[in-house]
Amino acid sequence: MAIITLTTDFGTRDGYVGAMKGVICALAPDARVQDLAHQLPAHDITHAAFVLAEATRYFPADTIHVAVVDPGVGSARLPICLRCNEQWFVGPDNGLFTLCLGDAPWTGHQLTNAAYFRNAVSPTFHGRDLFAPVAAHLARGVDPHQFGPTLSAVTELPLPTTHRAGHTLFGEVIYLDHFGNAVTNIRTADLSAAARALRIQIDDVVIEGLSATYEDRPPLAPLAVIGSHHLLEIAVREGSAARQLSLRCGTAIQVTFPTT
Amino acid sequence: MAIITLTTDFGTRDGYVGAMKGVICALAPDARVQDLAHQLPAHDITHAAFVLAEATRYFPADTIHVAVVDPGVGSARLPICLRCNEQWFVGPDNGLFTLCLGDAPWTGHQLTNAAYFRNAVSPTFHGRDLFAPVAAHLARGVDPHQFGPTLSAVTELPLPTTHRAGHTLFGEVIYLDHFGNAVTNIRTADLSAAARALRIQIDDVVIEGLSATYEDRPPLAPLAVIGSHHLLEIAVREGSAARQLSLRCGTAIQVTFPTT
Amino acid sequence: MAIITLTTDFGTRDGYVGAMKGVICALAPDARVQDLAHQLPAHDITHAAFVLAEATRYFPADTIHVAVVDPGVGSARLPICLRCNEQWFVGPDNGLFTLCLGDAPWTGHQLTNAAYFRNAVSPTFHGRDLFAPVAAHLARGVDPHQFGPTLSAVTELPLPTTHRAGHTLFGEVIYLDHFGNAVTNIRTADLSAAARALRIQIDDVVIEGLSATYEDRPPLAPLAVIGSHHLLEIAVREGSAARQLSLRCGTAIQVTFPTT
Repeated sequence: MAIITLTTDFGTRDGYVGAMKGVICALAPDARVQDLAHQLPAHDITHAAFVLAEATRYFPADTIHVAVVDPGVGSARLPICLRCNEQWFVGPDNGLFTLCLGDAPWTGHQLTNAAYFRNAVSPTFHGRDLFAPVAAHLARGVDPHQFGPTLSAVTELPLPTTHRAGHTLFGEVIYLDHFGNAVTNIRTADLSAAARALRIQIDDVVIEGLSATYEDRPPLAPLAVIGSHHLLEIAVREGSAARQLSLRCGTAIQVTFPTT
Repeated sequence: MAIITLTTDFGTRDGYVGAMKGVICALAPDARVQDLAHQLPAHDITHAAFVLAEATRYFPADTIHVAVVDPGVGSARLPICLRCNEQWFVGPDNGLFTLCLGDAPWTGHQLTNAAYFRNAVSPTFHGRDLFAPVAAHLARGVDPHQFGPTLSAVTELPLPTTHRAGHTLFGEVIYLDHFGNAVTNIRTADLSAAARALRIQIDDVVIEGLSATYEDRPPLAPLAVIGSHHLLEIAVREGSAARQLSLRCGTAIQVTFPTT
Repeated sequence: MAIITLTTDFGTRDGYVGAMKGVICALAPDARVQDLAHQLPAHDITHAAFVLAEATRYFPADTIHVAVVDPGVGSARLPICLRCNEQWFVGPDNGLFTLCLGDAPWTGHQLTNAAYFRNAVSPTFHGRDLFAPVAAHLARGVDPHQFGPTLSAVTELPLPTTHRAGHTLFGEVIYLDHFGNAVTNIRTADLSAAARALRIQIDDVVIEGLSATYEDRPPLAPLAVIGSHHLLEIAVREGSAARQLSLRCGTAIQVTFPTT
């Protein structure tokens, strides 16, 4: 029984997610549909790329992940199907899968063969008319070569990089979660073992040292932890770092290493 | 394995949806429960009717759709079970299913036989105590005649109609989605083939011609498309038409046809 | 086929819920995952305890309920697995399950055996690395004695009690739902049969008598009903009692019984 996951920015007050499920259930009655998340910020491909990287990697081999955050629906951007790390990814070629692919080898196909689409494809709803049916056909064992020409490249999301000057590493906030935790682009591997001696600065807020857990600090105190993404995260215990520290995607962060 | 879908205005911060799922899982362990949407605007039957029409039609034959947007719960409005287009609909008789039925033939039953309800029916939670168990019994193959008397009519939702005067068609906004797209009651069939020459006016905003996709216009520009409902939709590329143009359900819209 | 339910305060805009589902699907492919609710107020253990009590009780025997509202994640609070009323509960020992247990007998285990966790346990995401895999192993039939030492006590949530003075019963609001209905700690059993003659007071708002349904009163009128929790609820027909009457958890309520 194939698993098909759904990740969208459709919200849960309209019929769009249900329509996709209906199409899948009709074409692949044995497939098991799993909602990953549907309240992604509208049109925010970078946010979606993080969500997909976080959620999809734990699924078993051959899971089919359908993702629809697709501001360019109906335009020149290609509909695609990728295989990477033994999983399938179906959605628009707009960078959504950049963090799922990482540096791993992948293969992929354009979706051009209308035999695997719904009869009439609305230019504004490829989720229902194109991605859902292709995922259902994949679940039934259709060879992806049937879907269209082989892809040689995919659109990659430009992600901000860190840089280092002397004892200071400069990065930025790249993701804000539901709790107001701010994920940065500073990786665990970039931090020395001297975690307690690190000095982290965001605007005029200074955090001394990493915390092992949120409860290391008093309630409402800002703190820095290595989050579940293996990235440096800024949080506020029992509060929202985003709100309390006025953080946004792009807010600069500096980590200063001890000089000895 | 029967499919039972759930559509409610219960939100996802309380235990109400879970309670319905528990009742279904206990009575019909083989049924597969699919969430359609739970964050419908509270008590908004018209909105719910659109969501149901959009989402349910793609499911396979014999799917059981349970819908609970039910401001009159516990009052004189009837609990009902309908069959139409080879699908089942279970919920209150308040107009919720108007757009699912359309002009298609249907049969239906009142739900009066307490043998198919939970033992104690709370007057404020028919979703859990009455609609969920009836859906589970349907999934197990109970003949709907067992549920209660045959229905000869259902409550129909009053929907606004369009009218035409000269070269102008007058309609209104009837549904606002999560993205701020505004669905109107003007149908594709009402528009001439001269799509490019149409002139669409909402308040003092004029849109010249239909767009094929959102990307036909620059970011934040208002545009008109034929949406996935086969109805004229007003959108703003990468933005919210509802917010930018201050649209509400009921906002008037005019479409003027070319005079030649 | 085991059922595993998920209840969290993770929201549905991040990858956290999806990650838990992935871990479960990989370890227990036959288990059926059911979302109960994911938009619980962040870090609000009391709210979560009500949601769990409302939703879990209707599921069939041997259902596994995973709950993660866990402000103390990674700290000294224990991860636990409980069995009560023939169901399983997996989550942090912070009082979440107080209302599920009630006065029923239970058995339980600490979760200390890392053989049943993911290989690397993030101190900030026990939902993914510890609770999801333990639930999956339970679904596969692992004896909970394998998970860790037997528990002799669990953390209990302190809940406000009512008191009576003369003809008046004093209670308070303990839960606000999505509709703005306010659940109080006054139980059906505490009210006399003279429901019509009761006088209910919240701040300076007086409600005379209980209503059988919301439609007993005119639109936007405050009313009191026995809710689906068997607790006195304050509601506003087709409106929000929370907003209209400025109710919060802790708002005092008085019920005065007739003097004859």
